[in-house]
Amino acid sequence: MTNPSLLILPGDGIGPEVMAEVRKIIDWFGAKRGLNFDVSEDLVGGAAYDAHGTPLHDDTMARAHAADAVLLGAVGGPKYDVLDFSVKPERGLLRLRKEMDLFSNLRPAQCFDALADFSSLKKDVVAGLDIMIVRELTSGVYFGEPRGIFEEGNERVGINTQRYTESEIARVARSAFELAMRRGKKLCSMEKANVMESGILWREVVTEVGRDYPEVELSHMYADAGAMQLTRWPKQFDVIVTDNLFGDLLSDLAAMLTGSLGMLPSASLGAPMANGRPKALYEPVHGSAPDIAGQGKANPIACILSFAMALRYSFDQGAEAARLEAAIETVLADGLRTADLMGPDGGTPVSTAGMGDAILAAL
Amino acid sequence: MTNPSLLILPGDGIGPEVMAEVRKIIDWFGAKRGLNFDVSEDLVGGAAYDAHGTPLHDDTMARAHAADAVLLGAVGGPKYDVLDFSVKPERGLLRLRKEMDLFSNLRPAQCFDALADFSSLKKDVVAGLDIMIVRELTSGVYFGEPRGIFEEGNERVGINTQRYTESEIARVARSAFELAMRRGKKLCSMEKANVMESGILWREVVTEVGRDYPEVELSHMYADAGAMQLTRWPKQFDVIVTDNLFGDLLSDLAAMLTGSLGMLPSASLGAPMANGRPKALYEPVHGSAPDIAGQGKANPIACILSFAMALRYSFDQGAEAARLEAAIETVLADGLRTADLMGPDGGTPVSTAGMGDAILAAL
Ligand SMILES: CC(C)[C@H](C(=O)O)[C@@H](O)C(=O)O
Ligand SMILES: CC(C)[C@H](C(=O)O)[C@@H](O)C(=O)O
Repeated sequence: MTNPSLLILPGDGIGPEVMAEVRKIIDWFGAKRGLNFDVSEDLVGGAAYDAHGTPLHDDTMARAHAADAVLLGAVGGPKYDVLDFSVKPERGLLRLRKEMDLFSNLRPAQCFDALADFSSLKKDVVAGLDIMIVRELTSGVYFGEPRGIFEEGNERVGINTQRYTESEIARVARSAFELAMRRGKKLCSMEKANVMESGILWREVVTEVGRDYPEVELSHMYADAGAMQLTRWPKQFDVIVTDNLFGDLLSDLAAMLTGSLGMLPSASLGAPMANGRPKALYEPVHGSAPDIAGQGKANPIACILSFAMALRYSFDQGAEAARLEAAIETVLADGLRTADLMGPDGGTPVSTAGMGDAILAAL
Repeated sequence: MTNPSLLILPGDGIGPEVMAEVRKIIDWFGAKRGLNFDVSEDLVGGAAYDAHGTPLHDDTMARAHAADAVLLGAVGGPKYDVLDFSVKPERGLLRLRKEMDLFSNLRPAQCFDALADFSSLKKDVVAGLDIMIVRELTSGVYFGEPRGIFEEGNERVGINTQRYTESEIARVARSAFELAMRRGKKLCSMEKANVMESGILWREVVTEVGRDYPEVELSHMYADAGAMQLTRWPKQFDVIVTDNLFGDLLSDLAAMLTGSLGMLPSASLGAPMANGRPKALYEPVHGSAPDIAGQGKANPIACILSFAMALRYSFDQGAEAARLEAAIETVLADGLRTADLMGPDGGTPVSTAGMGDAILAAL
């Protein structure tokens, strides 16, 4: 039997340095747990633009399609701000999401006990927080046509189109209900049905899909109220399902509640492939952080936890994923802190590589 | 000289009961400060639907156009959830905003000293918070065409259109720069220029308008990062300018940072009328709160502060507005609390009318 394949796209900024730590972890699982992967690397984002004049080369796209899972670092940086929209680093990531049809983006917002003091929110509001945002990732205003900047009369007009079909809504809703079944059986769907017809359709379809999940307690909330309630008392939620744009804002908000963005992974899942595994891309929630890139200051944990999600969702290795997560908890409980985690409670400062090594040791 | 006219639209839910307290305050300013208004009342939202089968009667629309300022309570309620989209209570409010062309929506997020403990955020993060969100209110995805739910192949598709012209962006940007000049001279513009062409145009036009305000320090942030930064350290901001939909979420998020939604007013301003006053509608940020309507539990302060904003922005009575705001600070410092404000610090419970009377007494 051949090993499952893992395509690694470190990307820009701190992407390469956090990914270097993930590679150590992958190697450890091969050597010590007999979990071997065929790992290959390629370029995405600004790095791909520098090499090929495009943020995602067609060859890379083909390799992503063929891979059992893709692991991405981060894309973007000020150097690329001047580029035309069509070749900006983000377009590489968006093309991967779209062409791999990764419609279900799982963004856990989890507060680590050792880090509860880091949040700007009160400790009792966030301690033990464990919610999951399911964001639709391949449609909506991110991809809808018509789009662009047009001349109209004697001025320009900027246009984007929010667009959701019933089947697009149904499939992401189904993935959210499935997840809710394996968690607290509570699902809250967020849209602006009071203002947008696409939100009305969203609410209707989510309600319909819910008939297949009578055990799941389904509620609906306007997205603005959702932003409020996430801020006020986030523990009222278990799983949240929402569209691409609302999901972008709400998942970042939820991430920030935990106070430690450097800790948060994400999984973007599509339909099952021939081998039964879902098309999948895993990436940290944080960005490319160009201001600290190359200085050994970046926190590799979000990217390492993204690999843990890959173990769980792509390779059915939930126990191994839990082992990795436990190692991270241990290291944090021991007080090891990358620069972003140096805060109220002091702790022992470590570099990006120092954190990776400590996690290896804890494994 | 005739008195300036004030059209009062109490609306639904707690709207009428909070507005009753505002009327007392308005009467006080007439009797004690010689500030007399021609006050008239009309229906909006569900109340208008019940009476006329439409959430805003054409006669009411005409009276709003003619008024020197409109004061609105709140609209909506579960009773109206079954109504067709076109006659939902919200459509009445949206029609007012659109036809009066109230493009600049000012939403202060201010943390009252006496209430800093109420926030779900740590006290040092929010104490003394005073930011202003300027939200574009008459365009974007709220009003863009095409919109609706259409048949396509064998399924339905929900469509809305995000649409901004240069002049729409420029005028709201200008109002935000003007406000920044009178405040901390810092303006942050938020969009998703990395994903949406309408965001690219937004960023360009705001930058252009900024050339007329060299003293204002202008920055740009993606809206998802904006949601994060508002959560992490909101005091980094002074004035924020953003579009209709992002403004809806971000201003609600900012409001919730203060922990006391029942305290937050808003002003929606348009172009100057013949008499030099801007077209204007004032309303609390909170909704119609149907669950507590009619029980004397509602907090009238947000609506009273909306009248204070009217004094300042429509009637050039900044000193009288400050007098009213000071009276509210006094009452809060004295420990008087409506139900929504009963929290960690105890306090003396008062009803809606009790709060109104206490503010009158403090005046
Ligand atoms: C980088 C950007 C295109 C992306 C998005 O807007 O989806 C990011 O913010 C995210 O949430 O993954
Ligand atoms: C009631 C609703 C239509 C409205 C909006 O979405 O603008 C409200 O949420 C607001 O922010 O004033």
